[in-house]
Amino acid sequence: MENIAILGSTGSIGRNSLEVIDKLNHRFNVVGLSAGRNIRLLEVQVEKFRPKIVSLEKKEDAEEFRQKHKEKAIRITYGQEGAEDVARFEKNDIVVSAITGVDGLRPTLAAVKSGKKIALANKESMVVAGPLIVAMARQYGTRIIPVDSEHSGVFQCLAKEPKKNIKRVILTASGGPFFRRSPQKMESITLEEALNHPRWKMGKKVTIDSATLMNKGLELIEARWLFGLEPQQLEILIHPQSVVHSLVEMHDGSILAQLSPTDMKVPIQYALTYPEREDSLLPSLDLSQIRVLEFFKADVEKFPLVKLARFALEEGESYPVAINAANEVAVSAFLKQRIKFTDISDVVTRVVENHKKRNVQSLEDIFYVDRETREKTRNLLKRRY
Amino acid sequence: MENIAILGSTGSIGRNSLEVIDKLNHRFNVVGLSAGRNIRLLEVQVEKFRPKIVSLEKKEDAEEFRQKHKEKAIRITYGQEGAEDVARFEKNDIVVSAITGVDGLRPTLAAVKSGKKIALANKESMVVAGPLIVAMARQYGTRIIPVDSEHSGVFQCLAKEPKKNIKRVILTASGGPFFRRSPQKMESITLEEALNHPRWKMGKKVTIDSATLMNKGLELIEARWLFGLEPQQLEILIHPQSVVHSLVEMHDGSILAQLSPTDMKVPIQYALTYPEREDSLLPSLDLSQIRVLEFFKADVEKFPLVKLARFALEEGESYPVAINAANEVAVSAFLKQRIKFTDISDVVTRVVENHKKRNVQSLEDIFYVDRETREKTRNLLKRRY
Repeated sequence: MENIAILGSTGSIGRNSLEVIDKLNHRFNVVGLSAGRNIRLLEVQVEKFRPKIVSLEKKEDAEEFRQKHKEKAIRITYGQEGAEDVARFEKNDIVVSAITGVDGLRPTLAAVKSGKKIALANKESMVVAGPLIVAMARQYGTRIIPVDSEHSGVFQCLAKEPKKNIKRVILTASGGPFFRRSPQKMESITLEEALNHPRWKMGKKVTIDSATLMNKGLELIEARWLFGLEPQQLEILIHPQSVVHSLVEMHDGSILAQLSPTDMKVPIQYALTYPEREDSLLPSLDLSQIRVLEFFKADVEKFPLVKLARFALEEGESYPVAINAANEVAVSAFLKQRIKFTDISDVVTRVVENHKKRNVQSLEDIFYVDRETREKTRNLLKRRY
Repeated sequence: MENIAILGSTGSIGRNSLEVIDKLNHRFNVVGLSAGRNIRLLEVQVEKFRPKIVSLEKKEDAEEFRQKHKEKAIRITYGQEGAEDVARFEKNDIVVSAITGVDGLRPTLAAVKSGKKIALANKESMVVAGPLIVAMARQYGTRIIPVDSEHSGVFQCLAKEPKKNIKRVILTASGGPFFRRSPQKMESITLEEALNHPRWKMGKKVTIDSATLMNKGLELIEARWLFGLEPQQLEILIHPQSVVHSLVEMHDGSILAQLSPTDMKVPIQYALTYPEREDSLLPSLDLSQIRVLEFFKADVEKFPLVKLARFALEEGESYPVAINAANEVAVSAFLKQRIKFTDISDVVTRVVENHKKRNVQSLEDIFYVDRETREKTRNLLKRRY
């Protein structure tokens, strides 16, 4: 049996992970759960999976939980440090890192330092602190397996090949709900429309990032560090059917691609069972049923964050931290319906254009740029929107 | 430098191989060429590549060649044994086996026995003698790398994946020139139409086999032995764009696929340089240019040889030998315009339906069934067509 801790257990990836674990309960056992503020769901998860440690975001929620579950032999913690406690719990064999945003960085690092295998869904960690995480994983002998479907695909294709053979890596994007929307009608996009992703059921933040295509920009940066590639080796391609998740081109013109049903349980299961594979409960992909797979260049005029993210990818240093921070704040404002959909890219663009590049060598540097950029973004929102 | 011998040097695969070798002349050197009756082309090849041994199909052609090239330090042989001499020439490091049909079997076996690396394009060898070739390759430590684009793709996707993870393997077929032709108009197909393949430039035999879809049937049988799979793990899928050559589905629902430009030089080069890769001179595949990849089930009513080949695949033993022999004779008759296009499948079906299954354990058994079936097919052609 392998013991699993899940950071972000009540989110979309967390819930899907528990479904996979439940199905594979002959080989996996849940020992830790870290949640946000959804106490009710955490209670259901605790009842079913009987972890030894749980954490909640808020102290008062943790207190409430403790009162109600006194009789259970369970350690209850809270806050960022609580999540870190779950991440480095000594019984863990695998940590699923699925907290959204930069909030997941410290818990991810805690998991890396304790030398576990990590199933990484928290892409923002890699975006802002890729070089740090990769160096630390090497130092502590921690294996990081990506959970993002695109990166899981790349990981599987790269497994077949020495790195010197790799020419380029292409991540596909569904194009989101507005791929076919006319540029003139982007202004009128509602929150409901933006949250209605045509292919993937995901958390709110990543669903909005998919609608602006910022998600793909973040994924390019994530891929750079995960796979040790140069920015010019990384490309994106719009593929509305979301069947092909990524493609790896070799120098001899051959391309290996990874395809799978549009369900996060596939890459989650792969990350958990790697290097083995277990049977899927999903039906096989039937390409003769799907019939058509389409591919398009991304429209960088309509989705300016794609271009901006590539700029951040190429500039490196503090730029990925800044673009990610500005984006987290802008998306949060859009989710609260304080700004329009097109304001997200406007705000992020303004902030990044005014950003001054800085070396980031430590966690402190990263958090400094992150905090500063968030503040600037909030100020901009107050002043102009 | 690696020394290469090419069996079937004046055919389509042979010529493409020499183009690849010419481009990669920093690492490859031609030492042997075996040709059919195209003396003129062989002379050009000899002039350019300076092999140490050549063979021709006919004794009189070999004599003529010897007279004209007395001054050259070159060994000249002929016939089946000549091709075998080229295959087992002691200086070979790699043998490209690209003779068409069962005629390539003995030379392929000669290459297998001399423990070289083999780039295998002669699919009929694998179809009729798969178990024998595989056992022999194991015994002599010979590595067989497929040259067929579909099998090259499977080979690349299977690399490093434990066999127990493999659920099924799908070979794609372009559908040939008659994919969209109405069933009522199949009778009127001309030789010229059948030789006009929409995607691939290939030799005549394989072009006709592609038009009847028999080629895909032979490839299923080839794949069974090359990769050690069960018949029910093998499928075909029509993919008119011929960009995706094959797909390998794992038990967890993940599919790895191989894509490349529709040019035989890609899989030939891969087979020669394996396990390394060299740069391609072809432009990269641009999926946003190709835009649409389509997939269809094969129409087994319109292309009955697909169904018949699957029957032979599942029955095994002497059936693959019989279907291949009947097909070689029928295609040859069609190429001589003695029978209609639709007669090919009619003739092969009749012969296979009347075939009595027999164990084939030795080369003698195989050649016995092969000869007997050819005779029966020729008799049927005389009597009925």
